[in-house]
Amino acid sequence: MLNHPDRLFPTDTNVRAIARALYETVEGLPIISPHGHTDPKWFADNAAFSDPASLLVVPDHYVLRMLFSQGITPEQLGLARLDEDALEFDTEAVWANFADNYHLFRGTPTRVWLDHTFETLFNLDVPLSSSTAKLYFQTINRSLSQAAFRPRAMFERFNIEVLATTESALDDLASHAALAGSGWPGRVITTYRPDAISDPDDSNFRHNLETLGEITDCDTASWAGYLEAHRKRRAFFRDHGATATDHGFGSAGTADLSEAECEALFTRIVANSSDDSDHALFRAQFLTEMAKMSIEDGMVMQIHPGSMRNHNSSILTRYGRDKGFDIPTRTDYVAALRPLLNRVGMNSQLTLIVFTLDETTYGRELAPLAGVYPALKLGPPWWFFDSPDGMMRFREQTTETAGFYNTVGFNDDTRAFPSIPARHDMARRVDCAYLAQRVADHRLRESEAHEIARDLAYELPRKNYRLMG
Amino acid sequence: MLNHPDRLFPTDTNVRAIARALYETVEGLPIISPHGHTDPKWFADNAAFSDPASLLVVPDHYVLRMLFSQGITPEQLGLARLDEDALEFDTEAVWANFADNYHLFRGTPTRVWLDHTFETLFNLDVPLSSSTAKLYFQTINRSLSQAAFRPRAMFERFNIEVLATTESALDDLASHAALAGSGWPGRVITTYRPDAISDPDDSNFRHNLETLGEITDCDTASWAGYLEAHRKRRAFFRDHGATATDHGFGSAGTADLSEAECEALFTRIVANSSDDSDHALFRAQFLTEMAKMSIEDGMVMQIHPGSMRNHNSSILTRYGRDKGFDIPTRTDYVAALRPLLNRVGMNSQLTLIVFTLDETTYGRELAPLAGVYPALKLGPPWWFFDSPDGMMRFREQTTETAGFYNTVGFNDDTRAFPSIPARHDMARRVDCAYLAQRVADHRLRESEAHEIARDLAYELPRKNYRLMG
Amino acid sequence: MLNHPDRLFPTDTNVRAIARALYETVEGLPIISPHGHTDPKWFADNAAFSDPASLLVVPDHYVLRMLFSQGITPEQLGLARLDEDALEFDTEAVWANFADNYHLFRGTPTRVWLDHTFETLFNLDVPLSSSTAKLYFQTINRSLSQAAFRPRAMFERFNIEVLATTESALDDLASHAALAGSGWPGRVITTYRPDAISDPDDSNFRHNLETLGEITDCDTASWAGYLEAHRKRRAFFRDHGATATDHGFGSAGTADLSEAECEALFTRIVANSSDDSDHALFRAQFLTEMAKMSIEDGMVMQIHPGSMRNHNSSILTRYGRDKGFDIPTRTDYVAALRPLLNRVGMNSQLTLIVFTLDETTYGRELAPLAGVYPALKLGPPWWFFDSPDGMMRFREQTTETAGFYNTVGFNDDTRAFPSIPARHDMARRVDCAYLAQRVADHRLRESEAHEIARDLAYELPRKNYRLMG
Repeated sequence: MLNHPDRLFPTDTNVRAIARALYETVEGLPIISPHGHTDPKWFADNAAFSDPASLLVVPDHYVLRMLFSQGITPEQLGLARLDEDALEFDTEAVWANFADNYHLFRGTPTRVWLDHTFETLFNLDVPLSSSTAKLYFQTINRSLSQAAFRPRAMFERFNIEVLATTESALDDLASHAALAGSGWPGRVITTYRPDAISDPDDSNFRHNLETLGEITDCDTASWAGYLEAHRKRRAFFRDHGATATDHGFGSAGTADLSEAECEALFTRIVANSSDDSDHALFRAQFLTEMAKMSIEDGMVMQIHPGSMRNHNSSILTRYGRDKGFDIPTRTDYVAALRPLLNRVGMNSQLTLIVFTLDETTYGRELAPLAGVYPALKLGPPWWFFDSPDGMMRFREQTTETAGFYNTVGFNDDTRAFPSIPARHDMARRVDCAYLAQRVADHRLRESEAHEIARDLAYELPRKNYRLMG
Repeated sequence: MLNHPDRLFPTDTNVRAIARALYETVEGLPIISPHGHTDPKWFADNAAFSDPASLLVVPDHYVLRMLFSQGITPEQLGLARLDEDALEFDTEAVWANFADNYHLFRGTPTRVWLDHTFETLFNLDVPLSSSTAKLYFQTINRSLSQAAFRPRAMFERFNIEVLATTESALDDLASHAALAGSGWPGRVITTYRPDAISDPDDSNFRHNLETLGEITDCDTASWAGYLEAHRKRRAFFRDHGATATDHGFGSAGTADLSEAECEALFTRIVANSSDDSDHALFRAQFLTEMAKMSIEDGMVMQIHPGSMRNHNSSILTRYGRDKGFDIPTRTDYVAALRPLLNRVGMNSQLTLIVFTLDETTYGRELAPLAGVYPALKLGPPWWFFDSPDGMMRFREQTTETAGFYNTVGFNDDTRAFPSIPARHDMARRVDCAYLAQRVADHRLRESEAHEIARDLAYELPRKNYRLMG
Repeated sequence: MLNHPDRLFPTDTNVRAIARALYETVEGLPIISPHGHTDPKWFADNAAFSDPASLLVVPDHYVLRMLFSQGITPEQLGLARLDEDALEFDTEAVWANFADNYHLFRGTPTRVWLDHTFETLFNLDVPLSSSTAKLYFQTINRSLSQAAFRPRAMFERFNIEVLATTESALDDLASHAALAGSGWPGRVITTYRPDAISDPDDSNFRHNLETLGEITDCDTASWAGYLEAHRKRRAFFRDHGATATDHGFGSAGTADLSEAECEALFTRIVANSSDDSDHALFRAQFLTEMAKMSIEDGMVMQIHPGSMRNHNSSILTRYGRDKGFDIPTRTDYVAALRPLLNRVGMNSQLTLIVFTLDETTYGRELAPLAGVYPALKLGPPWWFFDSPDGMMRFREQTTETAGFYNTVGFNDDTRAFPSIPARHDMARRVDCAYLAQRVADHRLRESEAHEIARDLAYELPRKNYRLMG
């Protein structure tokens, strides 16, 4: 057995019994996955996944980064160089390398997710190691060739009620359109991610503005036309199921400029006569514009600042983005969000969900802000903190100030489709462990804990991401 | 039963038994409340409190902020607009709204304080909810009309040995004078809070200086006269029981200027030719001046930086201060306190008690500083961190470097008079839980833990606030 | 009994049993002490230590700082003033003063280390207090006069496999040479600490450069000669056993300048025409140079930024450095280390071990960086965080992202030779407690935990400090 039924529960026998009882009531609830990065094409095409290494190793930055950290090279892991033709790689050799180093993941959430996937999806119940690498490779390979392991079948087996993907604002959403016309009942929706047309530091920014103008028939060289283009694209995304927008700037800075200031700023940027501080100010003002549009059109807004992307330049140049080299940095929210919150923070029509990679802000900044502004809600512990101890710290450091009802339940935020049930299961277990502890020390009544467990696992994400419809 | 006798104790049976034994020895100790914001008029007039909503909802910024965060409006909570005549509000409707939303407080210290108050003060033992709102309202209302619920009776019932209030340096302390002359033996003392006459950013600062000059007969347009006026006011406050001063600047910055620099700086400020950096420097130098006066006159000095006040400007404009919109910010102590500590930090005559809203400074800055400078002591976890988990983190992150004896026991810091026993009870329970854990893992002997529990609950606040006299 | 056999283990009976079983397998492993500040002369001369106060109180900054914090003066503790002739101090009076105040150390690691030393080294089993001060003084004094308490005998009794000291790059390493020639088999090695010849802010910097030139016969007025001198000294240190270098700058800032920029910068500095930003840039570039040399010569590199040294200037002036007044400060690693890591961070030949005094960087910066860069490893919790709760936080906040194998086991980092076994014992206990918790909640298999416990206690420091040879 790879996964003990009581894993992640408190060790005290009495408290564990409470946790187990709580968990039994939420274990089987449908999965709400309102924020993630799976590829809608998988579900549109419903093609088989190719092999264990391409499914579970090569695309997973959590896996890559740990292997890199012990000197395993990108080449050994089958990563394609951007400046060379992609080579066929020996998938079984990559898998063997991964298996040889599986002990590195001891104590990490990746290990929990993978062991859960191995056992519940592929029926493997011996630990992965050098000596079981071949067994694993063959077993998973055999499974992947079967109909039951096609994307749609997995989606159904995972009991997913709704799955949100994330697309660039310029995307044609062809896969979502195909899915809508396919007759398959799985609910896969998109999310509006306009970074490429809102960050003047993006090297393609001006080109993207032109493309935006073409596909919306708006004058994206003017501030008014630019905003109108966003309104149209947001509507287009809503037509493909979107209920939310997502913004990945490095900073949480917001601004509240006058109309004239906005126009002047946008003109400088379009004319390429802007500087770095103009760009920062533009991103800041843009977030406030998105918040105002969210009040108009009801889309939930998400921001997740605080990552210094592509810390290593040679990896970026040779292998591209998302290879495990994004590193968290200190992040301010109190001064940063003030202009936006002064403008629209008291408006209950707006839901602004904030994520962080700086845990020091949980108790000092985010819980106090979300605990008073009706528009602000706390996203779940994110990325490096999507982990048992990370989740526990999130609850311990936010609940006393913001309570449970200013949080929004779990997001898996993942590209790793097979791990989705494992990730939600971990979140449910840790929340039940947290609640059980507080029942046992009499801060909560058990009946309350049952209600909260269900709210965190199911009701809050549905409600806060407006997925009830 | 709303309050389990073992609440907040460790869940392990053996450890809980140790905690319970420790708690039994401190549960009944008198309350030392050396820092808070109750109104001395309550005790001077001894009038009945009016109704449940006006007592427990409207004035409590912890309660207001959580209700705001879920879209309940100030109007729905009976808050008066500054720009309109105060209206009578329907206190029972406010109470019902609060009761309907009481589940929001699950997991928060407010819930613990309120449940304790409901049961021990008003004998209510069913949970507050929509269906018990009326019962609660009537029961509390009935109680408040009785003599046993007048302020002085509550004070005695709460077993308060001493209660410090906080008054502006310009206050005439009439209520304290009335109390002194009343024959009532309750010890209610004042605290010297000179923010209004020491912060040049205060819009009334220059007017306040004039007032200060008038009431002290000092030339407050000169640096020497300004300092002399403080000496006189500090003496006046000491005559009304004060043993401490309290300073609420946003920053912990201190300075150690020469006499000539002080005079030049003060002259610029009085002449209205100063800028922001002058103002910051003045506040910094002022703290060092207060520390030097504390060495002269023996008053304990308190600083609690790190709050960005009134984050939302429309709430400030419409409803005023202290409505739940003060947000913590990152705070530096190491460089900030250095000028003051270099000047007077090695002087054991000075007691400077420091509070923080930035928990990251506990282990990194405050415990290392308090663990070496004889003048510096750590105030208890404050405001958002006056909570079970907050208190536990405070001990876990300060004790290993600063020990127990560089901390000063608990402060309730509250405006919510009925909650004072609940707050001290929580602190005593959490400290006993912390100690029990360390007895159980053999870091402390049980006899030591008993001594420490008493020190934290009673001896340390008495000694450090110089309340033994 | 002063030290319970189950101290520092989890309190839950089942979890404690797992911890105890883990501990039993590592308790007796030899001590690897790859980073510390004992005096090699002790082992070269093998003279008796003089008395309890001079051994355990006067040189220990942890002890001094706590006593200072409660108003005990340097004079009362026998500290010599720099500006006066050192006086004989009454060692028994100092010891009595320490004993009278031993309760101050409750809850601190110092208490754990000392009680362990008292009982296991000196067979004392009653608590130290005013009433046992004399017994302690006499017992320890009697022991110190015996052969079994000479430095080499203690070294053997402590089961130390290797002990690294730290010497200035200009040191002649005479004690290490004497030791090597002594025939005594104890392995005491040096560490290359070039701060004095790499920090232009050091008041002796230019003089030290000249000395460096003389002892290496290199032109240390030129950049190339300066680097060559380092190469020679590193080789000299390696000849005396060194496997590592150590760098104590306040900041983690690194740079990656061109050869021409380096030469110009060095020329400005040698010519005394440099400013503060030049000095910072020089230190930053120097770290990168050291990293490059480490790739050449295989020496492990260590940095430990983040201490504001000598916070109190009067103590520094009167009593000198290392008296307890070094205070941690906020420290950045993500931007700071980027130039170095971009240059050499992907090189598995380099081992760069990073320490911190800013715990907020564990999860946010250091674990993400060490969890991806092959060159980077995390040093153990350091100084103020070399404590049971500090160690637990380190594991809780780094393991989920960096795993166990990007950490390097324990360092005692101490000047307090008799405490070395106590310090390693604490680390082993806390790691076993951490592992037992994760076995009990089924995140690790027990067999894995046994392997990890041995790795952390023995294999990782040996491997990462390259001490296997």
